[in-house]
Amino acid sequence: MRRLRVAMVGGGRDAFIGAVHRHAMALDDQWDFVAGALSSTPERSRASGRDLGLADDRNHGTWQALLADELRRPPDERVDAVSIVTPNHLHFPVAMAFVQAGFHVVCDKPLVHTSEQARQLVQAVQQAGTVFGVTYNYSGYPMVREARELVRQGAIGRIRKVVMEYHQGWLSRQIESKQADWRTDPARSGLAGAVGDIGTHAEHLIATVTGLQIESLCADLSTFVPGRQLDDDASILLRFKGGAKGVLLCSQIEAGCENDIRLRVFGSEGYLDWRQEEPNLLIHAPADGPKRVLTRNAPWLSEAAKVACRLPAGHPEAFIEAFANVYRGVAADIRARQGGEAAEPMLADYPRVEEGARGVAFVEAVVGSGGGWHALQGSD
Amino acid sequence: MRRLRVAMVGGGRDAFIGAVHRHAMALDDQWDFVAGALSSTPERSRASGRDLGLADDRNHGTWQALLADELRRPPDERVDAVSIVTPNHLHFPVAMAFVQAGFHVVCDKPLVHTSEQARQLVQAVQQAGTVFGVTYNYSGYPMVREARELVRQGAIGRIRKVVMEYHQGWLSRQIESKQADWRTDPARSGLAGAVGDIGTHAEHLIATVTGLQIESLCADLSTFVPGRQLDDDASILLRFKGGAKGVLLCSQIEAGCENDIRLRVFGSEGYLDWRQEEPNLLIHAPADGPKRVLTRNAPWLSEAAKVACRLPAGHPEAFIEAFANVYRGVAADIRARQGGEAAEPMLADYPRVEEGARGVAFVEAVVGSGGGWHALQGSD
Amino acid sequence: MRRLRVAMVGGGRDAFIGAVHRHAMALDDQWDFVAGALSSTPERSRASGRDLGLADDRNHGTWQALLADELRRPPDERVDAVSIVTPNHLHFPVAMAFVQAGFHVVCDKPLVHTSEQARQLVQAVQQAGTVFGVTYNYSGYPMVREARELVRQGAIGRIRKVVMEYHQGWLSRQIESKQADWRTDPARSGLAGAVGDIGTHAEHLIATVTGLQIESLCADLSTFVPGRQLDDDASILLRFKGGAKGVLLCSQIEAGCENDIRLRVFGSEGYLDWRQEEPNLLIHAPADGPKRVLTRNAPWLSEAAKVACRLPAGHPEAFIEAFANVYRGVAADIRARQGGEAAEPMLADYPRVEEGARGVAFVEAVVGSGGGWHALQGSD
Amino acid sequence: MRRLRVAMVGGGRDAFIGAVHRHAMALDDQWDFVAGALSSTPERSRASGRDLGLADDRNHGTWQALLADELRRPPDERVDAVSIVTPNHLHFPVAMAFVQAGFHVVCDKPLVHTSEQARQLVQAVQQAGTVFGVTYNYSGYPMVREARELVRQGAIGRIRKVVMEYHQGWLSRQIESKQADWRTDPARSGLAGAVGDIGTHAEHLIATVTGLQIESLCADLSTFVPGRQLDDDASILLRFKGGAKGVLLCSQIEAGCENDIRLRVFGSEGYLDWRQEEPNLLIHAPADGPKRVLTRNAPWLSEAAKVACRLPAGHPEAFIEAFANVYRGVAADIRARQGGEAAEPMLADYPRVEEGARGVAFVEAVVGSGGGWHALQGSD
Repeated sequence: MRRLRVAMVGGGRDAFIGAVHRHAMALDDQWDFVAGALSSTPERSRASGRDLGLADDRNHGTWQALLADELRRPPDERVDAVSIVTPNHLHFPVAMAFVQAGFHVVCDKPLVHTSEQARQLVQAVQQAGTVFGVTYNYSGYPMVREARELVRQGAIGRIRKVVMEYHQGWLSRQIESKQADWRTDPARSGLAGAVGDIGTHAEHLIATVTGLQIESLCADLSTFVPGRQLDDDASILLRFKGGAKGVLLCSQIEAGCENDIRLRVFGSEGYLDWRQEEPNLLIHAPADGPKRVLTRNAPWLSEAAKVACRLPAGHPEAFIEAFANVYRGVAADIRARQGGEAAEPMLADYPRVEEGARGVAFVEAVVGSGGGWHALQGSD
Repeated sequence: MRRLRVAMVGGGRDAFIGAVHRHAMALDDQWDFVAGALSSTPERSRASGRDLGLADDRNHGTWQALLADELRRPPDERVDAVSIVTPNHLHFPVAMAFVQAGFHVVCDKPLVHTSEQARQLVQAVQQAGTVFGVTYNYSGYPMVREARELVRQGAIGRIRKVVMEYHQGWLSRQIESKQADWRTDPARSGLAGAVGDIGTHAEHLIATVTGLQIESLCADLSTFVPGRQLDDDASILLRFKGGAKGVLLCSQIEAGCENDIRLRVFGSEGYLDWRQEEPNLLIHAPADGPKRVLTRNAPWLSEAAKVACRLPAGHPEAFIEAFANVYRGVAADIRARQGGEAAEPMLADYPRVEEGARGVAFVEAVVGSGGGWHALQGSD
Repeated sequence: MRRLRVAMVGGGRDAFIGAVHRHAMALDDQWDFVAGALSSTPERSRASGRDLGLADDRNHGTWQALLADELRRPPDERVDAVSIVTPNHLHFPVAMAFVQAGFHVVCDKPLVHTSEQARQLVQAVQQAGTVFGVTYNYSGYPMVREARELVRQGAIGRIRKVVMEYHQGWLSRQIESKQADWRTDPARSGLAGAVGDIGTHAEHLIATVTGLQIESLCADLSTFVPGRQLDDDASILLRFKGGAKGVLLCSQIEAGCENDIRLRVFGSEGYLDWRQEEPNLLIHAPADGPKRVLTRNAPWLSEAAKVACRLPAGHPEAFIEAFANVYRGVAADIRARQGGEAAEPMLADYPRVEEGARGVAFVEAVVGSGGGWHALQGSD
Repeated sequence: MRRLRVAMVGGGRDAFIGAVHRHAMALDDQWDFVAGALSSTPERSRASGRDLGLADDRNHGTWQALLADELRRPPDERVDAVSIVTPNHLHFPVAMAFVQAGFHVVCDKPLVHTSEQARQLVQAVQQAGTVFGVTYNYSGYPMVREARELVRQGAIGRIRKVVMEYHQGWLSRQIESKQADWRTDPARSGLAGAVGDIGTHAEHLIATVTGLQIESLCADLSTFVPGRQLDDDASILLRFKGGAKGVLLCSQIEAGCENDIRLRVFGSEGYLDWRQEEPNLLIHAPADGPKRVLTRNAPWLSEAAKVACRLPAGHPEAFIEAFANVYRGVAADIRARQGGEAAEPMLADYPRVEEGARGVAFVEAVVGSGGGWHALQGSD
């Protein structure tokens, strides 16, 4: 089985997330990273590409040059997919261009800056019939998938309350870094700061695990670090269709926190509890018996969780492996389409462009809340 | 040193909290439980008193009879204090009567039903010059006191965010029990259900540890169990004077939860994290170093925490001991006043009537919020 | 129901364990502490007694005076029981004297210094027909009782391996204190240091939970702190009758440890795991399903565990409550015998004199091992 | 920088560990897996190679054919290294042949069957001057490296006691599987069962972190599952040069366990505690302050730990990443030697052939113990 060829836009020298994407692609030997336009200037792009071993003729100074070059090549040499890992403001133009040119895409989140862009992009993907994955990577964890299955099977009954937390501390002070700079700049990051950067992950985890739709929300945004232009902390009350309630907390100024994500889903018959910093465990507390500590790849897990595992129970998997599961799902879908078949849903299990669009709508609603209740027009 | 004599109103057969109060009183050999009016009917009151070994002449059918009998006795035979552990609606008349008659009082929370009652009771206590403790028992845990000290010392810098959670599941279904019945009946429980019963503990923990005052709040109350008249779940956004933000979650319908209280206080220089179900630990995560796991009665704790301990580190103390610390604080204050002295603040460390009144104002604000922001007139 | 009267020998000023015994007695309002000979000199004894509110005529300078005085009193004024909390070397003479005089006894562990003393004491108790409890207090924890029940019910199948650990650090340096002094003095502590002081608790927990008998053992004793005369660390291999194996670790020089006791029992169908520093939990990991986290007083626990609880699940109980369960068991047995009845086994659930004797045999075997395998002649 | 070319011997279809090695090689894009002799029969070898995309001319039926073919190729086409992941009994002949032919080697543990083989292999590696890494993969975890550094820096003072545990349950019943079969067969597994398979990892972790040498040991081996020919459980007392003591437990029949490895090192000034199933944490409990919870890639870690990390703190890394660190270390050493330079020790940080030989001596001593004390002739 040949490896899929992938180009990367963004992700050059010093870009943390680019390296993560490359680790994730490398893990399962399904992808060859063969082309790129890796940085914001031609010089730095090419230097980054050389560092990473790109051939000179596929190491471009701009994403436009990359696109043009790919289109010039015969189809059997072209990349199968493009991975977009730039700052947020470039997601839209780059994604639109590659989708319209018929390439499969993997794009970082938040998807784009506005609902209108999201609408156009969803439409373009539907018209092109291409694969479009969004790296909501936390949904790639096996135990997140197990939680989703348990909810679907009714293990916790009817959902009443969702408590979603995302605590970071790395922006607790005024810092200067490539990562911090663009994330706190409205022109590059978008309408929101913490809400866009990590709140969207949180929204996606809720939707993935619970299947619930947010009906309305009431957000209290704060900016604690002086001089910052975007929110760095948010507390959001949620009301879901059907009557469930929720809270979504996200913050990047909680000094002492690393990347502490926790999702609890409380139902009429018990609850589920998952934490990203100890991702191989899922607590299931039924109403009528003791807490059950589910571990990754234990024999009694669902198939949907097991196919997301590479190692036996007790041999922990973590962030890169979850990230790689997004790439593996995208690869399964590309291969299925290339073979003219429908993908097996359990294998082609990755976040779609519509989920990215829903995240954009969420960010707009949060920013639009102004401290009061704000209805959400979901994209689905 | 003679034991203090105490009477109890409420707390008869089958009343969980009465037994807790008696365990707490017994622990340090400071109190003699000598009189009572323990139940809601004269027959059941006397039967309960006999079960508990009260002498016949101090085992009364009503609290009015108890009060009359005590006043009839010579001062050196009278009880020093009365412990009020009835359903909420009786707190006000009983407390007022005993305070005005000059007795020291320990009263369960929530203090009374309305701010007006609270105002009158605070005034009565101030006029009588008596001791009035409110059994916000969770503030009696040594590690809660350590948290308060760390905040005061600036260990976590300026407070930015408070996340307070109180998760219970025992009312997740329609149940019939003495405890459940009155707590879900507005006439006996007051304006609020979960918010009054456990939200008040949560509010008190926040105030105790942070010293912050709630400026306004926005509450989303729910009643998930059909037929219930009061809230059984609440999510509350908080804004504190000075700019800190917070969230207070309390719920009694989260099936699978026991008594899961957690307080996190995030500051500019780190955070604190305490959980009631593992109360001998306090996490202190500084911004610039690894998490520190503080343990009860370790040599490096503050004096304020150490005086609340009975056993060396590693020999865990728990709920009853924390509850007993409220009684120990009240006893220290009574003894000091009986000796004509000012109590040592570190010993007379217990929740006062004003804190009870603040809790009533909190409940009123939550119920008055109606899903929007509502300003709080604090009692202090 | 009248309280039982109890005298105490030892446990005066500054004696940690005396205070624990008094807290434990006080908790359930079953005992009146009315007499004592509390310290090693008459002056200090009486001063301690005054501190604790003993009446002058029952506050004695020596245990002999206490005994003589009690025998002088009419039976309905005498104490029901004597609690012996002296340094170890006094256990034997004091216990023998009171047993032979017909008093019920609660005695600290290790029971006595030699197997011969133990044999005599067991015989004396059997002849006197009195109650004799040994404060192996850790076996009073509800979750230890649950573990014992699960083993009895076959929840983990046939036992294969027992891993028992007891880690302390308080003797990691040369220190001077009342508690440290006598424990490291062979004349007062007995043959062994850490093995006698905490290894005996460990041995008792193994026997209580597993019901297994040690057939032989191989011990490696160490003394890490220079100048110390007794062991301060031990690693012991165990072979049980029937083929199970085990390891018992106990140490008092592991700097950084508090009172970290952990018992794991591995069987053919799963394992159990309990830790004293988080005593409200018991892990049960079955071979064919996820780990179950059992919590104190949850509805699905055994009756034997539930009767050892005072508070609902989620309201933690701890060391004092477990200690009080020993006293409660002794009280139940005394009351039954006073009423001429057989005690209900689930209530009169406390460590007997024979268990104390078994502990002495264990200490002798460990000390006699000399690094090689040594057979154990159990007392039962 | 070109990727290093690697061949694999063993690790074909259904071989768990072969897939792990390939994930580990793939992760950092340093290795190209280009040749192999993957299974025990020529047919299955070639089928496995085809599955994995090996070119036909480098997909061999036997390791002898692989070796011959490689030697036939011009040096700049040959593989740089061979990875040996066969059952144990083949390690020696395959490793000797490739070492003597001048290839770098990565070999699974336990290294070989006998000390004599180990001696010959060490000598051969020294003569050839090649790189020889042993996949004691657990030593690749960043927090294990941090523990080693803390010991070296004296953070816990002088080591007194080492408690090393390795609990598995997968062999708790008679099972039939490729992995179970050869591990329980003396001809293929060697002298020992659990001791060889996981006890050697445990021994290596002790030596890595503490730097101590085992002077003598006393082992109690058991075989709990009827019909099994090798030990499936071991409890081993350790005495180290210089006076420290230790215990090493390893078992594969503890039903309910997954891969529960824990190392605690107790010193005069505190202790360290690391668990493989939560590998991103390291507890450091100093004697004179609260426990410190060190997290992977936190700013205050040592450089030696940080170079072993790929992701920021809070983004967990796990088993594959630790395994990959062995391959990364080997790669750094190969590249340095190819460049004629000495490798940077912090980068070329991987277990050497001498450590493998020490493990073989350990296994022989354990098996030779017969329940008594047995001196160890270390290889270093």
